Amino acid sequence: MGFDSVLKFFLPKDRVFYGLFEEVAASLVQMGNTFSKALREEDLSKRDAILRTLEDHEHKNDEITHRIFIELGQNFITPFDREDIHYLATALDDIADYIWGAAKRIVNYQIDDQYNTLPAFAEIISKSIAAINTSVYALRDMKDLRAITEACVLVNSLENDADDLLDSTMLKLFSSNISAVELIKQKDIYQMLETVTDKCEDAANVVESIIIKYS
Amino acid sequence: MGFDSVLKFFLPKDRVFYGLFEEVAASLVQMGNTFSKALREEDLSKRDAILRTLEDHEHKNDEITHRIFIELGQNFITPFDREDIHYLATALDDIADYIWGAAKRIVNYQIDDQYNTLPAFAEIISKSIAAINTSVYALRDMKDLRAITEACVLVNSLENDADDLLDSTMLKLFSSNISAVELIKQKDIYQMLETVTDKCEDAANVVESIIIKYS
Amino acid sequence: MGFDSVLKFFLPKDRVFYGLFEEVAASLVQMGNTFSKALREEDLSKRDAILRTLEDHEHKNDEITHRIFIELGQNFITPFDREDIHYLATALDDIADYIWGAAKRIVNYQIDDQYNTLPAFAEIISKSIAAINTSVYALRDMKDLRAITEACVLVNSLENDADDLLDSTMLKLFSSNISAVELIKQKDIYQMLETVTDKCEDAANVVESIIIKYS
Repeated sequence: MGFDSVLKFFLPKDRVFYGLFEEVAASLVQMGNTFSKALREEDLSKRDAILRTLEDHEHKNDEITHRIFIELGQNFITPFDREDIHYLATALDDIADYIWGAAKRIVNYQIDDQYNTLPAFAEIISKSIAAINTSVYALRDMKDLRAITEACVLVNSLENDADDLLDSTMLKLFSSNISAVELIKQKDIYQMLETVTDKCEDAANVVESIIIKYS
Repeated sequence: MGFDSVLKFFLPKDRVFYGLFEEVAASLVQMGNTFSKALREEDLSKRDAILRTLEDHEHKNDEITHRIFIELGQNFITPFDREDIHYLATALDDIADYIWGAAKRIVNYQIDDQYNTLPAFAEIISKSIAAINTSVYALRDMKDLRAITEACVLVNSLENDADDLLDSTMLKLFSSNISAVELIKQKDIYQMLETVTDKCEDAANVVESIIIKYS
Repeated sequence: MGFDSVLKFFLPKDRVFYGLFEEVAASLVQMGNTFSKALREEDLSKRDAILRTLEDHEHKNDEITHRIFIELGQNFITPFDREDIHYLATALDDIADYIWGAAKRIVNYQIDDQYNTLPAFAEIISKSIAAINTSVYALRDMKDLRAITEACVLVNSLENDADDLLDSTMLKLFSSNISAVELIKQKDIYQMLETVTDKCEDAANVVESIIIKYS
């Protein structure tokens, strides 16, 4: 019996969830950073190579999420409400899905991002994921409630920024001379990126509702 | 200690939820009426000015919804199942979000609503919100169950009307000579308005499931 | 008192749910098969006549789902967690809604499905529904857990296939010469069909989470 197994044996089973959520959050931070880095890359073939690596991230994320659901099924006692674990895991999983969905379309569609909307979205998304990461890590000891609340408020405000970015970009596109087909492609990608920030907001709302209950 | 505080002190804490849901419902009724009024306005700059006021309504709605979630976190005892409060608050909040989302796009895109689809949607939405308002107010004493059920049936039937309106409008647009870009704009707005009625249906379904449990 | 009533009287009330879920699953199998059959039909007016019959299926499905929610409200004891019943019923209902939504648009839009995307989607959907049917029937006695798990894994893999089919079709369409309006129509239908497989995955995930808890 190795040290790990001994540790696991003595570890209260319900504390497993903190570690798993921290793993998902860390993996999302990596995704956000990779996505941002790719979109700052000027060489398009290098950019696409980086974007393609996000598929592995997304698979890894799927696996951790799956483990959360298995633990949820097997543990009668959980550190916070069962439905909050379910909602949080689902929202974090959706963040990864939509980032990969947008990345795939950026590679496939080869749009002309003339207003630099993509790097602007990537920055909002990175900041939003960083704030979620902070709030998820703070869940473990619940000491710094103010930090959690501030992180959640930030995620909400970043979602508004993404909304405004989508609106202003669409207005520019509608009054530009691009073809309808090009417009369909760009709208598709930008909407997916805006949805990433919606899912970040969902995650932040769950975290906020957890700390309200336990404070 | 003012009268309000005294009242709040004696008020069973769980009854707070009725008041909050009634506030959301009343605010939605106002939104629905303002939206209808705007779309009957022939002067477009007046119309847009009215539509822009919906942003404040949406913010107010957000705040009440936030208070519901805070109360939900702090109250161990709730008048109906915790998840029903969560679902109902979310559905009502979504109604406000999608109305404002559509209003913003109507102002921004300046579409040519040649088949008068917008006022037709506004009428369906107003009726649907009125029925939800009836059902939410009836939750407090649970006396008139028939009225609640009838209101929920009406919301479901109005959702079907919105679905048919979307279908028939899209068919007309597809066989018209409008440009693809104009078609994209109109489809975007009409789909958001149809989603408003989906969210109304979600809210009505929650109310119905509550009265089934307590009757 | 007929034999049925006697049976119902002695039947533990919570077992009612198995029968209702089996009814929904069987009705979905019929929908999937009818949809596939229609899309293999070369005579378009015959095809449309078959597709139109799906509306009745969808109504029937609605009614069974409604009965599940009524039972859920009236039964204090349920065979598995109340929220799992809620999630499963909702996911199964969404499958029917999106199939009918797509069928209606196929009839209305008369698209030129030049890459045979529709029959390919219909096949994926039929297989996915068949796997869900297997897993729902196996819930009743929970004996063959391996069969349930395999069915759920299959549904997940079929969802990936649908995703890939949507991606590759969109790529072909974007590099084809079809008009933007035709592209909008086709994208609308194919996305709805991909959503059908998302809803199948949601249903499979609920079934999987149920067997984890009870095994």
